[in-house]
Amino acid sequence: MTSHGTAQPTRQERRRAQTRQRLLDAAQTLFARQRVDDTTISQITNEADVGFGSFYNHFASKDDIVEAAVREYLRQQVREVMGLVEELVDPAETVAIAYHHFASKAAADGEITQLLLSLDASYKIMIEELGPHARNDIERGLARGRFAISDPEVALVASAGALIFTMRAMSEDKVGPDAAVEVARLVLQIFGVTENDAAEIVKRSLRSGPG
Amino acid sequence: MTSHGTAQPTRQERRRAQTRQRLLDAAQTLFARQRVDDTTISQITNEADVGFGSFYNHFASKDDIVEAAVREYLRQQVREVMGLVEELVDPAETVAIAYHHFASKAAADGEITQLLLSLDASYKIMIEELGPHARNDIERGLARGRFAISDPEVALVASAGALIFTMRAMSEDKVGPDAAVEVARLVLQIFGVTENDAAEIVKRSLRSGPG
Repeated sequence: MTSHGTAQPTRQERRRAQTRQRLLDAAQTLFARQRVDDTTISQITNEADVGFGSFYNHFASKDDIVEAAVREYLRQQVREVMGLVEELVDPAETVAIAYHHFASKAAADGEITQLLLSLDASYKIMIEELGPHARNDIERGLARGRFAISDPEVALVASAGALIFTMRAMSEDKVGPDAAVEVARLVLQIFGVTENDAAEIVKRSLRSGPG
Repeated sequence: MTSHGTAQPTRQERRRAQTRQRLLDAAQTLFARQRVDDTTISQITNEADVGFGSFYNHFASKDDIVEAAVREYLRQQVREVMGLVEELVDPAETVAIAYHHFASKAAADGEITQLLLSLDASYKIMIEELGPHARNDIERGLARGRFAISDPEVALVASAGALIFTMRAMSEDKVGPDAAVEVARLVLQIFGVTENDAAEIVKRSLRSGPG
């Protein structure tokens, strides 16, 4: 347990957090170069240079560290998106850049994307990690009259499904290289932006964005 | 192997097909009343009244019969949708009724829906079983100027993802009872129909439809 509130973490707590992070980093390194099914817990503890038994002080199972690695990956992606959109005022542009960024990663980070897409828990993890940000963008877009959405929660869930299925199709080469741009447009359309406006917003935001 | 072409199936082939169907029916009956994880192959062969060993003449594993049961369920749903839309000329109405029908089933057929949503193969199965029909509707809608879609394959994949994530949210009571109507509207928006037109088409097609 990590202490909350104003208390500083103790030396023991810091060390514990460091070991957990070492295990996570080791898992991500291994998953990037070999299949998860072929990865053993002892390979992870060797790579992290910690004792085999201490794995279970931090994770209940291999599935548990896989889920934690996917969450950490998504949080890192969210931080990257936040950096890309921090100066934007238009929530429609924010949505375009965010969904484009995640879809683009499907091609770039193949292994972790496969992991994300194959996990039974991927639905839950996507909604938990990305949902709060997407809800915030939807609310801002509605307040500014940029979006027309009758049920924000269904629109959020549908946009997440559109994103993840497109990522899967991209990772399997079932769709062309422009699919990341396409899905950004389609999500804006889900949020009630017309097809013409969505095309224009995506073109503008991907041209001006640093990514 | 089933014979193709004009040859009639032999008596042996007919008997073989009947046994396979009995096993599938038994699996669906069992999955409707208990968890798949708690269902054994011997329960399935008992329910079907066939010998345990003959299971493996038809299916490689429990996963294999689960996948076949889900495919058969989807094909049955496709037949129901075909019945609902056969007299419609407007592909936009066909799309509204089809996606609404599938989403509505998430609440009605809880167990098989959970199965569909939890299967790692659900992406592949959905695209294989429903994709050809959706592609046909998209092509007709484009030819008639009802849809505005720049990449039909991405639109198809995104609409399937929107549907399946909404079904999952419905089966977990994360969205309201109108989610099936909502997702039908959102899929039309993915296909380039404006938000106002999509709302009107869905209202009209669900009012006039027999379902």
